[in-house]
Amino acid sequence: MIRALVFDVFGTLVDWRSGIAREAARLLGPDPSLDAGAFADAWRRRYEPAMETVRSGARPFVDLDTLQAESLPRVLAEFGIADVPDAVRRDLVQAWHRLDAWPDVPDALRRLRTRHLLAPNSNGHVRLMVDLARRNGLIFDAILGAGHSRDYKPKPALYRDAVTALGFAPAETLMVAAHSADLAAAAHHGLSTAHIARPREHGPGGGETAPAGPVTYAARDLADLADQLGC
Amino acid sequence: MIRALVFDVFGTLVDWRSGIAREAARLLGPDPSLDAGAFADAWRRRYEPAMETVRSGARPFVDLDTLQAESLPRVLAEFGIADVPDAVRRDLVQAWHRLDAWPDVPDALRRLRTRHLLAPNSNGHVRLMVDLARRNGLIFDAILGAGHSRDYKPKPALYRDAVTALGFAPAETLMVAAHSADLAAAAHHGLSTAHIARPREHGPGGGETAPAGPVTYAARDLADLADQLGC
Repeated sequence: MIRALVFDVFGTLVDWRSGIAREAARLLGPDPSLDAGAFADAWRRRYEPAMETVRSGARPFVDLDTLQAESLPRVLAEFGIADVPDAVRRDLVQAWHRLDAWPDVPDALRRLRTRHLLAPNSNGHVRLMVDLARRNGLIFDAILGAGHSRDYKPKPALYRDAVTALGFAPAETLMVAAHSADLAAAAHHGLSTAHIARPREHGPGGGETAPAGPVTYAARDLADLADQLGC
Repeated sequence: MIRALVFDVFGTLVDWRSGIAREAARLLGPDPSLDAGAFADAWRRRYEPAMETVRSGARPFVDLDTLQAESLPRVLAEFGIADVPDAVRRDLVQAWHRLDAWPDVPDALRRLRTRHLLAPNSNGHVRLMVDLARRNGLIFDAILGAGHSRDYKPKPALYRDAVTALGFAPAETLMVAAHSADLAAAAHHGLSTAHIARPREHGPGGGETAPAGPVTYAARDLADLADQLGC
C-alpha cells in the first residue's frame, strides 16, 4: 500500500531542456549560431560535478542557484559567448525557476493527491520547488529534498529524511523518477519505486524509456502511474 | 513590501485547546469528573519544558509527537487517570494531528496565498503540519519550522532558515503569530511581524488580545490581516 509519493523534479515533472533552451535563446539574443538545446545540455552536464563538491564534503551545502551561477561562466565560454551583463547572468540562473511541467503532470498530480501525500524530493531547494509548483499549478503537501536535507541525491539523507518527514514506512513511500539511478538509490533505503518514461528529456531520442533495473511500478507517464495506483 | 508569510500554528491557526479537550473526552471515556479543558491546558504546559530539552542541546532533535508521548503519562497521573491502554495513549498523541482551524483561517489563507508565499513556521514537524493542513483544507507552499530546522522556536535557526528557504529579504518575510514572544524573536532576526488576537486560545478570556511589544501589523484575526495586506 502506497501512502506518500516523493518526486524527482528535473526531467521527471518538468522539461528542463526545452525551458532552458527557450530562456537562453531569449536572454542571449537572436544569435542564429546559438544551438540553445546544446547550451541547455552543456549547462546540465555541469550539474553532477557541481553537486559532487557538496556531496563529497569538500564544501558546506549551497543551493542549486549558487551551483548554476558558478558553472554558467564556463558554459558561456564553451559557446564563445562573451560580455554577458551580470543582470542577464542572474536572469539565466532564474530560468531554472521558469520551467514548464510535462503536459501530463498537472492533472495526474491532482489525481494522485486525492489519495496520497505528495512532496518533491529533488536536488532543487525550497524556493526553486515553490516557484516551479506555482508556475505550473502543482499542489504539494511539503517540499523535501536538498533544501530539507542540506545535501544532494543520491546521498542517503535525501531518501531517509523524506521517509521520516512524511512518517510512513519506507515501503509505503514511493520515489517517482525518470532516472534509474535515483530509483536504485531509493530502493536501497527501502522505498518503493516508480519509473516514469521521459524519452525526450535530453531532446529527441534522449531519455530513459524504461527502467534499467527492478522497480515497483514502470509507467509511460504520470497519468499511467495514477491509473496503476487506482487514483 | 511583504512577499512571504510564515505562521505559528498552535493557537494562531488552529484551536489546540478545544481539539485536545474534545479528543481527551472522547478517548478517556465519559468520565463526568474529567475537566477536559484543564487536561488540555495541563498537557500544553508541559510543552515548553519538553522542547527545552532539545533547545538546550541536552538531547538530539526529536519531534513533537515524541515529546507529547513522553509528557502524557505525567498528565494522566496529574488527573488520576490510570490503566490507559497503549493504543489509546498513541491515539491521544495523534489528537494533535486532528485539530480544527479557527473559523477565519481557511478563507483568509486562500486570500493571502493569491499574492504571497505561505508556509507554517511552527514547532510541529512536517507530517503534523501536513495532517492539520489536509484536515482543514489549507494550502501551503512549503512546510518550514521544527521539521526543517531540527530545533524549536525561539532558537534563531527557525527564523533564519524560514527566510533562507523562501528566498526573500528578512523584512519581506512576515512572521504571523498570536504570541508576542514569538514575534519578538522574529523581529530580532529582521523579520516583519503580524500579531493575531486569539483571546480564547487558553479558553474564555485566556489569550493575547493585543501584542505586548511593537509589531508591523496587529490584526483582530487572519481576515483582518488579509485586509491590511490588501489581499
